[in-house]
Amino acid sequence: MELVVGADLLGEAQRVSAAVDRLFEDALADRCDGRDRLCRAMRHAAIGGGKRLRPLLTVAAGRLFAMDEDRSVRAGAAVEAIHVYSLIHDDLPCMDDDDLRRGKPTVHKAFDEATAVLAGDCLHALAFEILADVDTHEDPFVRAELVLELSRASGIDGMAGGQMMDLTAEGAALDLGAITRLQSLKTGALIEFAVEAAAIMARLPAEARLPLKGYARNVGLAFQIADDLLDLGGDEGKAGKRLHKDEKAGKATFVSLMGEQRARAQANLLVEQAIEHLHDHGREADLLRAIARYSVERDR
Amino acid sequence: MELVVGADLLGEAQRVSAAVDRLFEDALADRCDGRDRLCRAMRHAAIGGGKRLRPLLTVAAGRLFAMDEDRSVRAGAAVEAIHVYSLIHDDLPCMDDDDLRRGKPTVHKAFDEATAVLAGDCLHALAFEILADVDTHEDPFVRAELVLELSRASGIDGMAGGQMMDLTAEGAALDLGAITRLQSLKTGALIEFAVEAAAIMARLPAEARLPLKGYARNVGLAFQIADDLLDLGGDEGKAGKRLHKDEKAGKATFVSLMGEQRARAQANLLVEQAIEHLHDHGREADLLRAIARYSVERDR
Repeated sequence: MELVVGADLLGEAQRVSAAVDRLFEDALADRCDGRDRLCRAMRHAAIGGGKRLRPLLTVAAGRLFAMDEDRSVRAGAAVEAIHVYSLIHDDLPCMDDDDLRRGKPTVHKAFDEATAVLAGDCLHALAFEILADVDTHEDPFVRAELVLELSRASGIDGMAGGQMMDLTAEGAALDLGAITRLQSLKTGALIEFAVEAAAIMARLPAEARLPLKGYARNVGLAFQIADDLLDLGGDEGKAGKRLHKDEKAGKATFVSLMGEQRARAQANLLVEQAIEHLHDHGREADLLRAIARYSVERDR
Repeated sequence: MELVVGADLLGEAQRVSAAVDRLFEDALADRCDGRDRLCRAMRHAAIGGGKRLRPLLTVAAGRLFAMDEDRSVRAGAAVEAIHVYSLIHDDLPCMDDDDLRRGKPTVHKAFDEATAVLAGDCLHALAFEILADVDTHEDPFVRAELVLELSRASGIDGMAGGQMMDLTAEGAALDLGAITRLQSLKTGALIEFAVEAAAIMARLPAEARLPLKGYARNVGLAFQIADDLLDLGGDEGKAGKRLHKDEKAGKATFVSLMGEQRARAQANLLVEQAIEHLHDHGREADLLRAIARYSVERDR
């Protein structure tokens, strides 16, 4: 495995994050009527917070194809809007009942439950509005494929289906295979789409996308194992959300099943495999490599 | 105004409803894992109930262009999936807190709140998955326009924004202008899209769509006034949902502001205007005319 000196991950992440913020700011200017509260709730959740991992992945994957960053930021922002809506709904009292997210009160705490449901629904719609406007004048079929794949990655056969499996699993004795399946839906599908979106926009044939899909699958799982490790031993101040939740809920996680040491080793192995999928690429894949390493080295 | 003898509205409605059911059945086969409960909740809400007004409108508008009904049913089913998801979320305890819908317990009553939130989210995603697969091989730009317009009609500048205005308005003294604005977002935007979808698929230029938009706006408002009248004097058994809610909540409606008689006259006038927008069309617009009349003559 070739180990490349990391790209300027922090700088790139800040730049992409600011671009995503600007895009959301434009979409969420105040409506000056009964909807002003809704606009504020959407901004509260969507702007100025989060690691922006998903848009960063889209931008990083776009680098492989020398893609105009306006395009990859826009597609990545659509994925981020889906991610943010899912956080709002997952935090609701009837779901995970969380009161802290990205270092701020969750939307139903800062506003109210009805506003939180609607803010999530509006960000869900906004994701497709943003995506339908991606610049793909070279090939309009690209937009339909983006919409089809994002709806699949976020619906019953992706993120929302995984969240349902997670809720159903509480108290059940899941094995590693079941946890892997659950997480590949709950967090993996959207992370995979974030990477694949760049390949779709670059009109890469399905077969040529396989290494990128492999990279994304490995990073998604590594990221989830790191999340489980942080839930166990992380810093709530840095994380900006409540930790030790899995433990308290008695939920099976990668860490509870494998133990901390094996889980950490497995996460590192996944990162190596992710980077190995990029072996045909040179420096243009450095950002993807840096993100893979960051996925397990992060402290929040 | 030409008064055309009604098309076989009941027969057409039953046929379209069955086609939408089949499309949803195919999409919602059981997943045989932790998501089986989610599939059942989605089917509970989406299949075998409702007037199917929106897909019927898409099919009826498609008649003007001799459109293959598979295409208009599919686009209409996408609109219906959005409508059904909004009913599930609007019925939640934190929103309108309803326990009866389409003659059955609401999803959070038959299942639980978490499942209801996720079933709504999955139907929301399914709407775009269905729409991204509409047959538009003649012009792929059509799909992007459908996605863009549906996301706008359902998000903060459409249905969900209107629901937020409605929640905010409780107890406030709205005037007729404000109620009209609220309803044009909450129910009008999606009804307009249901009609416009056919025009988009037929690649009608924007200007040529104006009469159809006018028809849809009039029918949407007439439908809403009829809803207010039914809320006041309808039969809960037929309606399949709780009535007299506006009255109890002290909410301003078309009927509370205009009185029953003027409201009924206004609804009839809107139907005449809707039909007038179709004056360039012959028998191929009969189904649209029948739907306009039905929108105020219905007893549920």
